[in-house]
Amino acid sequence: MLLDQRRLPHQLEYIRCTCAEDVVEAIQTMVVRGAPAIGVAAAYAVVMAADSAFEVHGNAWREAVMLDLDALRKSRPTAVNLTWAIDTMVGSFPALGANPSPVLLNHAVRLQGEDIAANRAIGDHGADYLEADAQVLTHCNAGALATAGYGTALGVIRSAWSQGNLQHVFATETRPWLQGARLTAWELQQDGIPVTLLADGAAAQLMHEGNIAWVITGADRIAANGDVANKIGTYALALCARAHGVRFMVAAPLSTIDRATPNGTAIPLEERSGDELLAYQGHMIAPAGVGAYNPVFDVTPAALIDVLVTETGALEQPSCESIARLFPD
Amino acid sequence: MLLDQRRLPHQLEYIRCTCAEDVVEAIQTMVVRGAPAIGVAAAYAVVMAADSAFEVHGNAWREAVMLDLDALRKSRPTAVNLTWAIDTMVGSFPALGANPSPVLLNHAVRLQGEDIAANRAIGDHGADYLEADAQVLTHCNAGALATAGYGTALGVIRSAWSQGNLQHVFATETRPWLQGARLTAWELQQDGIPVTLLADGAAAQLMHEGNIAWVITGADRIAANGDVANKIGTYALALCARAHGVRFMVAAPLSTIDRATPNGTAIPLEERSGDELLAYQGHMIAPAGVGAYNPVFDVTPAALIDVLVTETGALEQPSCESIARLFPD
Repeated sequence: MLLDQRRLPHQLEYIRCTCAEDVVEAIQTMVVRGAPAIGVAAAYAVVMAADSAFEVHGNAWREAVMLDLDALRKSRPTAVNLTWAIDTMVGSFPALGANPSPVLLNHAVRLQGEDIAANRAIGDHGADYLEADAQVLTHCNAGALATAGYGTALGVIRSAWSQGNLQHVFATETRPWLQGARLTAWELQQDGIPVTLLADGAAAQLMHEGNIAWVITGADRIAANGDVANKIGTYALALCARAHGVRFMVAAPLSTIDRATPNGTAIPLEERSGDELLAYQGHMIAPAGVGAYNPVFDVTPAALIDVLVTETGALEQPSCESIARLFPD
Repeated sequence: MLLDQRRLPHQLEYIRCTCAEDVVEAIQTMVVRGAPAIGVAAAYAVVMAADSAFEVHGNAWREAVMLDLDALRKSRPTAVNLTWAIDTMVGSFPALGANPSPVLLNHAVRLQGEDIAANRAIGDHGADYLEADAQVLTHCNAGALATAGYGTALGVIRSAWSQGNLQHVFATETRPWLQGARLTAWELQQDGIPVTLLADGAAAQLMHEGNIAWVITGADRIAANGDVANKIGTYALALCARAHGVRFMVAAPLSTIDRATPNGTAIPLEERSGDELLAYQGHMIAPAGVGAYNPVFDVTPAALIDVLVTETGALEQPSCESIARLFPD
């Protein structure tokens, strides 16, 4: 059951996925979005794919499942948690017995639980950096909706709020999909955390007026050198933050770090249909026939990131070396 | 007759103003927007105010007109062309005879014509900076709609296009009022100039991908030191442009330069209702009860401006001294 994030905040509707193809479609159409949430959804999709393959093909399920897993891998290109979750599930295939479903389901449930635990740890590590009465700015939605629960950037914000060290959250509306206006505002409002929306382009003026201590965002993929792919607009915020002496925090679980990708240039950045920009709820915004460029992620270079927070702690000025030390293998 | 810019690009509707109050309302509700266009509209409002005052109060019209002029002055705070146009009209009051209307109407028509001529000169001076096959980025709408005709930033773009030195225009959609998506795209499309829209937050990614030669914007008020108040989001674009080696051009008539305002800190920046951000065409975007911060202008410091183009020519790295030399008085 996936909460349909396209309908929030006005409608609370769930979509029932009964096979891997349903999950592929839900990921592609953004019923579910947010790198860790996509990863957990994919883990359950692997369970359903294996279950269905076993029912039809018996002991040959491992081969039969591959088509579904391929489609799942390709459902969205940027969030590496998708590949990570599928690989983690597939890694357990050799050890599985006759009927794979019960054990795989346990694995998926465990991944989901681990993601929530990681978010809580991220929240606490990140909140340590917030001084009393901090005002922060966040972009897009890196909250409970983007994860298995609690959130990464919003996890830091939730932890700081519960510790009494947060005064106010400013949230960019996050064009074109309006994750900030629709999702982040909704989440924070439900938790009673004071939130004010602003246009993405107004963030520099807000920083200029002062009193923003941190920009805090999530991540869709972090390269081995610390470059961060995240929602379009993140890079501009990081440049503006640096120009104003506002610190920049990226909060993400280790599953978002892709050691096989050396740097941001190598991260595939999804471009989606221009219609996301040109129309709103069926209303055309622009004149008919005008084209749109709609990259939905950008890359913030590691040099602009003051702190990278994972479930194992915080890295200040993240680098190849400090990131490698997170993975003692 | 004012083309209702709130209805574009889908409806072409004109609003008839028959008195100064009508113009005040049209300016406040953004039937007409854009600093030079507001100035010209205000000039005609002065004609109507004087005409009406003369009809009712006869020779005491100069005193009777003051209430209307006060309301007009206060209709919007940031664009200095508004005050400039009113002051220019009022400057002719002492010399006027019995019935002021015919002479004042001539003055307003002359201001309108001079604005178009200034835009054409700005266009030509600015276009000199564009190399062959230039791709440029513009923000908001500084076009024919924002002026008496031809445009400032779009004047430069029109001139460069007619000289064959422009390959493509990228236009930010310009939240919250969507001047880029609704107005700039419409204007350029009508002239057959290739235009692609993008989210305001995507501009840094576009600059990173390269091949943007210039960011070209208009201005609502330029302080004596060259700081520029313009549509919210301009400052972030200027910071991002500087970080990528993309040059930044501001195109505006001399009437936008406010020598009485020493620097950007002294420019009053309008904040408008958060509803502009929270709803689109009657559809609520954000959950009910969430607040919004909606500053509609920001200040770009002179140090981030590579070229300031006025009708008298171009100033590279504008400064107090070079701006003062534009006004040999």
